[in-house]
Amino acid sequence: MSIFNNNVATKFSDLKPRGPGGEALLEAEREKINFDVKSLSKFMYTEAWLDKLHRVLSVIESEPAFDKTSRYYQSRSEKIKTSLWKDRRMVELARLFLREHLWDEQEFQIANFLFDQSSPFTLHYSMFIPTLKSQTNDEQKKLFLEPALNHQIIGCYAQTELGHGSNVQGIETTATYIPETNEFELHSPTLTSSKWWIGGLGKAANHAIVMARLITNGKDLGPHPFCVQIRSLENHAPLKGITVGDIGPKFGFNSVDNGFIMFDHYRIPHISFLAKFSQVQPSTGIYSKPPNAKLSYGTMVYVRANIVMGVRYALAKATTIAIRYSTVRQQFVDAASPKKWDNKVIETPVLDYTMQQYRLLPIVASAYACFFTGREMLRLYELNQEAMKDGNFDLLADLHASSSGLKSLTTTMAIESIEDCRRACGGHGYSNFSGLGQFYQDYLPNVTWEGDNYILTQQTARYLLKTFRNVVAGKAEPSEYNHTISYLTQFLQNTTAKCPATKPADFLNPELILSAFGFRAAYGIAKVAEQIDREGRSWNSMLVEISRISKAHCQFILVRNFIVTLQSDPTLTRAEHKPMNQILRTLSALFALHTMEKELSEFLLSGYLSSEQCAMLKEQVITLLDVVRPQAVGLVDAFALPDYYLHSALGRYDGQVYEAMTKMAEAEPLNHTLVVDGYEENIKPFVHQGRTFAKKDVSVSRL
Amino acid sequence: MSIFNNNVATKFSDLKPRGPGGEALLEAEREKINFDVKSLSKFMYTEAWLDKLHRVLSVIESEPAFDKTSRYYQSRSEKIKTSLWKDRRMVELARLFLREHLWDEQEFQIANFLFDQSSPFTLHYSMFIPTLKSQTNDEQKKLFLEPALNHQIIGCYAQTELGHGSNVQGIETTATYIPETNEFELHSPTLTSSKWWIGGLGKAANHAIVMARLITNGKDLGPHPFCVQIRSLENHAPLKGITVGDIGPKFGFNSVDNGFIMFDHYRIPHISFLAKFSQVQPSTGIYSKPPNAKLSYGTMVYVRANIVMGVRYALAKATTIAIRYSTVRQQFVDAASPKKWDNKVIETPVLDYTMQQYRLLPIVASAYACFFTGREMLRLYELNQEAMKDGNFDLLADLHASSSGLKSLTTTMAIESIEDCRRACGGHGYSNFSGLGQFYQDYLPNVTWEGDNYILTQQTARYLLKTFRNVVAGKAEPSEYNHTISYLTQFLQNTTAKCPATKPADFLNPELILSAFGFRAAYGIAKVAEQIDREGRSWNSMLVEISRISKAHCQFILVRNFIVTLQSDPTLTRAEHKPMNQILRTLSALFALHTMEKELSEFLLSGYLSSEQCAMLKEQVITLLDVVRPQAVGLVDAFALPDYYLHSALGRYDGQVYEAMTKMAEAEPLNHTLVVDGYEENIKPFVHQGRTFAKKDVSVSRL
Repeated sequence: MSIFNNNVATKFSDLKPRGPGGEALLEAEREKINFDVKSLSKFMYTEAWLDKLHRVLSVIESEPAFDKTSRYYQSRSEKIKTSLWKDRRMVELARLFLREHLWDEQEFQIANFLFDQSSPFTLHYSMFIPTLKSQTNDEQKKLFLEPALNHQIIGCYAQTELGHGSNVQGIETTATYIPETNEFELHSPTLTSSKWWIGGLGKAANHAIVMARLITNGKDLGPHPFCVQIRSLENHAPLKGITVGDIGPKFGFNSVDNGFIMFDHYRIPHISFLAKFSQVQPSTGIYSKPPNAKLSYGTMVYVRANIVMGVRYALAKATTIAIRYSTVRQQFVDAASPKKWDNKVIETPVLDYTMQQYRLLPIVASAYACFFTGREMLRLYELNQEAMKDGNFDLLADLHASSSGLKSLTTTMAIESIEDCRRACGGHGYSNFSGLGQFYQDYLPNVTWEGDNYILTQQTARYLLKTFRNVVAGKAEPSEYNHTISYLTQFLQNTTAKCPATKPADFLNPELILSAFGFRAAYGIAKVAEQIDREGRSWNSMLVEISRISKAHCQFILVRNFIVTLQSDPTLTRAEHKPMNQILRTLSALFALHTMEKELSEFLLSGYLSSEQCAMLKEQVITLLDVVRPQAVGLVDAFALPDYYLHSALGRYDGQVYEAMTKMAEAEPLNHTLVVDGYEENIKPFVHQGRTFAKKDVSVSRL
Repeated sequence: MSIFNNNVATKFSDLKPRGPGGEALLEAEREKINFDVKSLSKFMYTEAWLDKLHRVLSVIESEPAFDKTSRYYQSRSEKIKTSLWKDRRMVELARLFLREHLWDEQEFQIANFLFDQSSPFTLHYSMFIPTLKSQTNDEQKKLFLEPALNHQIIGCYAQTELGHGSNVQGIETTATYIPETNEFELHSPTLTSSKWWIGGLGKAANHAIVMARLITNGKDLGPHPFCVQIRSLENHAPLKGITVGDIGPKFGFNSVDNGFIMFDHYRIPHISFLAKFSQVQPSTGIYSKPPNAKLSYGTMVYVRANIVMGVRYALAKATTIAIRYSTVRQQFVDAASPKKWDNKVIETPVLDYTMQQYRLLPIVASAYACFFTGREMLRLYELNQEAMKDGNFDLLADLHASSSGLKSLTTTMAIESIEDCRRACGGHGYSNFSGLGQFYQDYLPNVTWEGDNYILTQQTARYLLKTFRNVVAGKAEPSEYNHTISYLTQFLQNTTAKCPATKPADFLNPELILSAFGFRAAYGIAKVAEQIDREGRSWNSMLVEISRISKAHCQFILVRNFIVTLQSDPTLTRAEHKPMNQILRTLSALFALHTMEKELSEFLLSGYLSSEQCAMLKEQVITLLDVVRPQAVGLVDAFALPDYYLHSALGRYDGQVYEAMTKMAEAEPLNHTLVVDGYEENIKPFVHQGRTFAKKDVSVSRL
């Protein structure tokens, strides 16, 4: 049947889409933009960063190891194999530092950002090396960190177990000190103690940071980190006493070899115990405690600030695709307001429908909201690090608590928004060529890892309740940095305050918006405090309300950072940037009011808003959609995400959606043969039963 | 390196999970159940159906073509190939009718249900054959339907185009009558006219129903169906003039070969035009119109009733997995109420946390809600079919409108619930072994196909607004079958009614619940009518509110059918079934009150509920969770879904979660070799740089 192995019948002809084409439609959209798109990009990224982006892009776009053409067609093992290739090539490119490509660390990060797919070495960089940097003594730095930086060893970070996730204190793997040989014995006592979900462990790593319960002199001292060799450096075979492998296919993230590992009385040398903060004395096995390290909270704030910044990219990517496609895709003629093109009625671009605007434009606004809050979190992180050096821990509690809730809130927003954008692309959103499917799958773990999004809200709520009690007791004063105390104080001064709005446009007033969000958060906190402190309700029975007050607090922060930055940022308040500031102000109002509408029952229950005001609020949201609509393409263009990064048929800058869909369909491996594998056994016998074939029935012309 | 091709290091030892094991925990749960699980299963499915289920199950569990062991590891082409195998074997088994296995049509359906994965032949059964049955004349039945029933031809249904989805009237493919040869010429004039998304077309089908614009005597008569051969019956090669192939990878549904097809002046004989309802006269090309067929609305009701019943299965599957795993999975010790086992404190099973109950138990309730509404829709469908035969179309409009909104509402509920259940399984929910990942991916198109969920709400809303205007004008009388008219009439009699609840338990009163849902739906409809009819707002600007009133109406129906059935069903009201009725009543209240809480702002805005009542409502929801919690495992066991169907490590009936996870990980194809493909090129060069190897560094013992 090899005569069919040409691809004629699956090649599309040169036909054009029915006009107007995507190019013309997007061009018309871009003519409507009333602010300078490039200035907005520069404001968000800096010109220097954008230059780096383009330099790195030009390199990797022509690197076969970074080619994305086959990304959506690959099987699991192909994904792993090509990811390893990319990992190797990345190291080679980075090593060209000071020679051909001049990549610094930021450019290395940009290359990973643009490639946009985690790989077996990802955890080597994001967890193995940072842990070695922060938790080793000098001898260990030489032994582990230096070869890790040179890729002479490849590592991962093994904490989670099959039966133990969020509750790290419950892990079962033990590391028992053996004074006779000055070794530790790693052991997995049960099936549930198997390390599980460990990125890079399944197939790539030869070392692992293993979190295990330190036992010395018969005492269980809880989880501590060990740096452990797990595979041969000569031939990569697992070492004796170790059971290790890949945990199997996942919802996404299949380019990473998440692995399992079990230890059977596996001996490791004394030096394996990471000894920067606590030590086990050789021979005696005497343990010395780490200093109580509030400092590590600072690192968590940093990680979470970056997650919030990452949310901005996720929302930017999803909306860039959905908004551009929504201006190209046309559906039905809106009889009341028919769209014309060259004096002819055409079907209406779906972004002209209010429902589509309502589904997408608030997400564009939330991308900007996350940008401003991420930036503010990084600023406060720096401030706090400085303050802590001077022994000042005043900032830390508020910052840490907010960062927990913000990680929870914004990653949940992100995943919902990616899916909303995907669905807003109609049927084609379901094709992997949309660029939104694998993206959703790969993004999804963010709601579970780095703190489960439900559990995290308890941390935030605990702080909010404690602060409330302090404010009530007069033990907390408002400060420049602590807005929690400010809104709680304001609430306690007038617990029956009412929203002053008398017409829809009043809801555009930033002060009114901030008061509303502060009041609503404070009201919820006060209610929960009352139920726990006065009515004696258990923490467990209050978990639903507890997650609500964390969310209310973090929505206040997002709204506040957006509004305050627009009022105070020196770049944005320059006269030349007035149009840009104007559209950002509109977006900040849309973000705030749409959020209020989503959470309307809480604003109503607190007594702050009346039914009449809610109707005004809803009206104002629809009015804002109308204002943002013509700027929509400009607002996503300003995210400056290259086509290589998006890898989406629907989200292309040039709008050639249908041309791209057909090209990508041609490349589907199933189309490489005209007759499907399985035809002979499973289709032919039915079709041929009791039939003889006339000449005309065969596609002779093709043979 | 073949010495590593044994699998020793990736085989788990015989260790047990840390106790208590899943078996013991689930057994303890089952001891708490206070109703008869089997009776509830029988009530929902009938004993006869359950017998069939078990008979079919025993056959396919030992059929290699139905084996699910490799399901989660397969590449796209492996999925297609094994799906074709299953399709063939299914035909063979069905043909054994009256011989060995005695499968009737229901058993055939059960086998497909249990296999739980669509395949290339799926559309042959669900669209090709039904269309041929309903739209052909006798000659065409002989020519197309008979061979289709015998699988001598395999077909699909080609309507959607690359540029045209919901707006069927906008499709571009033409079928021009050529009187000279008495043929039609199928043609695809543009790239956007390519048929797209057509299940079974990509690789399997040799025929297609093609929807094309009929053009005869220069007149465009809009879309009509044609039955068209597209591939050779002798060797399966595409016929000349056709471009056909698979559209590529999708978010899910990758076991189906969704395809594209374009026609280049492709001639088909006159007989291809499906001629039951309209005809083109040979030679003259004179067209005769179909009778105006309201009748087809009946079929849509039937399809949608089955979608709602399908939602019940989706919710049942998701909750069975999540509830069982939540009783096995333990996390943290709840200090205020520590869980004991054999007098020892253990970590608390996560289902004991209120938040977990709040996330899962309302979904269990909604599965039952969908069952009762699906059943009622099927009953009304039958009633309506009978009525229409007598020329009575009174029932149709309400039934059709409700079915549109219910399809939209319940499939949206289903997909959100599947994801909520997946997330409630923590980290392991992200593993494909949870059974929830591919399930989510495959279920997702339900929110877009058979009517996009947003667009459908407009149909419902149009009917609701029209009915409202009729009621206001005194032109509509309440009837036994039209509850829309009833609640609108009731609302208009007192538009400022208030909820009479004075304590939390008052919210358990079914009459109070129904009044609340009716009032809230009517209030929303009245508001929208006012804004459109009096304030002159455009339909487009009202789309957000329009989707809300459709939802409000359909939530009323779901709540009503649940409550009324429990009050009136002859089986449920029997004395012996009192415990079963009791728990179902609790579930109906949980479903209703949790829905009210989700939509609280609408109940508040309508003025029906006060803030104080909302607090009572929330309290009552938490109380109900407490009542349902001990019955949770019984309620999902009653869904009677076999382990073969669930194919989930987390949802197993016996609770052996961790044993199953490790077994399935062992089977991951990446673990079939100890050293990963790509090691030599991409890892070894780094690791070996500047290193010599001592004997000890190699895992000699294994070699």
